[in-house]
Amino acid sequence: MPFPPLENDTFLRACLRQATPYTPLWLMRQAGRYLPEYKATRARAGSFMGLATNVDYATEVTLQPLERFPLDAAILFSDILTVPDAMGLGLSFVEGEGPKLARPLRDEASVAALRVPDLAQLRYVFDAVTSIRRALNGRVPLIGFAGSPWTLACYMVEGSGSSDDWRRVKSMLYSRPDLMHRILAINAEAVAGYLNAQIDAGAQAVMVFDSWGGALADGAFQQFSLDYTKQVLARLKRGADGATVPRIVFTKGGGLWLEQMEQLDCDVLGVDWTVNLARARSIVGASKALQGNLDPAVLFAPPERVAEEARGVLDAFGVPHGGTGTGPTHIFNLGHGISQHTPPESVAALAEAVHTHSAAMRQVSTKP
Amino acid sequence: MPFPPLENDTFLRACLRQATPYTPLWLMRQAGRYLPEYKATRARAGSFMGLATNVDYATEVTLQPLERFPLDAAILFSDILTVPDAMGLGLSFVEGEGPKLARPLRDEASVAALRVPDLAQLRYVFDAVTSIRRALNGRVPLIGFAGSPWTLACYMVEGSGSSDDWRRVKSMLYSRPDLMHRILAINAEAVAGYLNAQIDAGAQAVMVFDSWGGALADGAFQQFSLDYTKQVLARLKRGADGATVPRIVFTKGGGLWLEQMEQLDCDVLGVDWTVNLARARSIVGASKALQGNLDPAVLFAPPERVAEEARGVLDAFGVPHGGTGTGPTHIFNLGHGISQHTPPESVAALAEAVHTHSAAMRQVSTKP
Repeated sequence: MPFPPLENDTFLRACLRQATPYTPLWLMRQAGRYLPEYKATRARAGSFMGLATNVDYATEVTLQPLERFPLDAAILFSDILTVPDAMGLGLSFVEGEGPKLARPLRDEASVAALRVPDLAQLRYVFDAVTSIRRALNGRVPLIGFAGSPWTLACYMVEGSGSSDDWRRVKSMLYSRPDLMHRILAINAEAVAGYLNAQIDAGAQAVMVFDSWGGALADGAFQQFSLDYTKQVLARLKRGADGATVPRIVFTKGGGLWLEQMEQLDCDVLGVDWTVNLARARSIVGASKALQGNLDPAVLFAPPERVAEEARGVLDAFGVPHGGTGTGPTHIFNLGHGISQHTPPESVAALAEAVHTHSAAMRQVSTKP
Repeated sequence: MPFPPLENDTFLRACLRQATPYTPLWLMRQAGRYLPEYKATRARAGSFMGLATNVDYATEVTLQPLERFPLDAAILFSDILTVPDAMGLGLSFVEGEGPKLARPLRDEASVAALRVPDLAQLRYVFDAVTSIRRALNGRVPLIGFAGSPWTLACYMVEGSGSSDDWRRVKSMLYSRPDLMHRILAINAEAVAGYLNAQIDAGAQAVMVFDSWGGALADGAFQQFSLDYTKQVLARLKRGADGATVPRIVFTKGGGLWLEQMEQLDCDVLGVDWTVNLARARSIVGASKALQGNLDPAVLFAPPERVAEEARGVLDAFGVPHGGTGTGPTHIFNLGHGISQHTPPESVAALAEAVHTHSAAMRQVSTKP
């Protein structure tokens, strides 16, 4: 049974550098703890993994932010650590502490034993993708995602995401680069298979989160993060059912490496709030769309300040030249995941400001 | 009584873009917990503040790394939070948790009550500077330091340095920029007075640590960090006793803003490990020396790998053109403070590699 036709295609068009009447908007972690209805569902599910592994719950929470706000895309509710979990590393979420892996990779033997997981173990994710796509009923496109090979390796070696210096994973990188390369090669194969299965299940765009790429030194980033993201992209399907599936790559703290990221075989580069969008646009030229980059902390301010800062981000990028081939397009997002402390009213103010101002910018620019 | 003449002036010469026979080296937090002798002194002092406020202990620990390693500069043993402490915010160090301020700035009234502190309250710092300078007996120059106005504000509003999103300080910045500007203006005046008093007491170079500048969004960095660092620099003494006192500014995570930092009235820009030194050199041209930028995590690797990575940093910068006016000079350092988990042997290997390889690079480059 085919999926229903898409009503709002602004996000997918902007990904492919085509013209849109306004700048599309979605938010990293838009389904999450800042929404009371999410907390209610999570309480019923009992735990984060209880939520993520149940197709009905995952579908429910993925759609919750779309009921409140006119967002232009949905993103699968899941976690990047489903992949290490399927590798047998033992994922759990401890309340208030974030994710933990029970069996981190700390020695040569554990690295030697690491294998690309059987995708059948991740079936619950692909089922959720299909369920969400059906439930969306064509309203907006659905984004699938995975962690980058390097970012997964950070968690797989450290055992958690709470390190402030990544001592264990960097010790391995500098002391035993052979072990690190083995982990990354396995991760690249696993992530590519995982994303391709999400595409088969109905994902209309895919995003690679390189959340910890920015922790690496210049030189190490290229060798241990970027090269393996390239391997993932090289193995990805181009599309499904005749439609192109755009690829988004986001390296938090990767602003200094935009020239090199511009060479990636992807459609969109995500940038965090430290990046000047006008400058990023001049670096990527016409070859990539840009996604970002409001500081999530702006959403702690009153609605009128949120609107002002959102207009500032749109103005920094300027009017997109979608479809003219002369420059990139822009997808509005935060520079990182939305904070659990965000008042939902701030998101409403943000969506209103982004849609109104970006449409007005296009009007002004096309006046004779 | 004048201070003894300086024997090793490579660090000061490199700061002022003059030729040196090798690349000078020092390490941020070189006196610290990775040294057993530091831990012994700290145990005798009872607490971090017991150590920092006692002139004899502060002198002892400042000199400890120089006894072990051929470092080319000493840095005052102290903490950037002495200034907020003197403002009455109540500094303490909780074992394993880092610094805490008992009375953080959380409302309009506390910001209104904030004052530039009486420098007499910081007399223990200036006494330590003089004591250390005498104890150094001209071996290497002594660096004084302070936190940047923004970085101090982060701690002053959050109450600690453990935030991963700086929610409180950024909420104030975006919601009440007037309050933030008041704090920063007071901090700038306080920091300038504090550094000038360190210069009067014997500091031969001064460094501004903008440890949290990189947490700011593009635009906010310029307005809330860089502008106030400029105010500090504008108020600083040029020198003491006929000698120029070089100024170093280090913004961790500030690599994207090097063009703007190049405009600062300082001699040296510190950069972290995400920065490509060759590129940074081409950005700052001949106007600034560069300091950095080995990833501190390299020091967890075996000595031969430490040496290899250190040579990589030297090679990335290239041969300095000190004294020729055609390019900047290089001061070797880490890209951030040394980790307490560092094996001291790694520092020995680093110093050996930096001095040997940088001297050899100069020999090769001057061969006919």
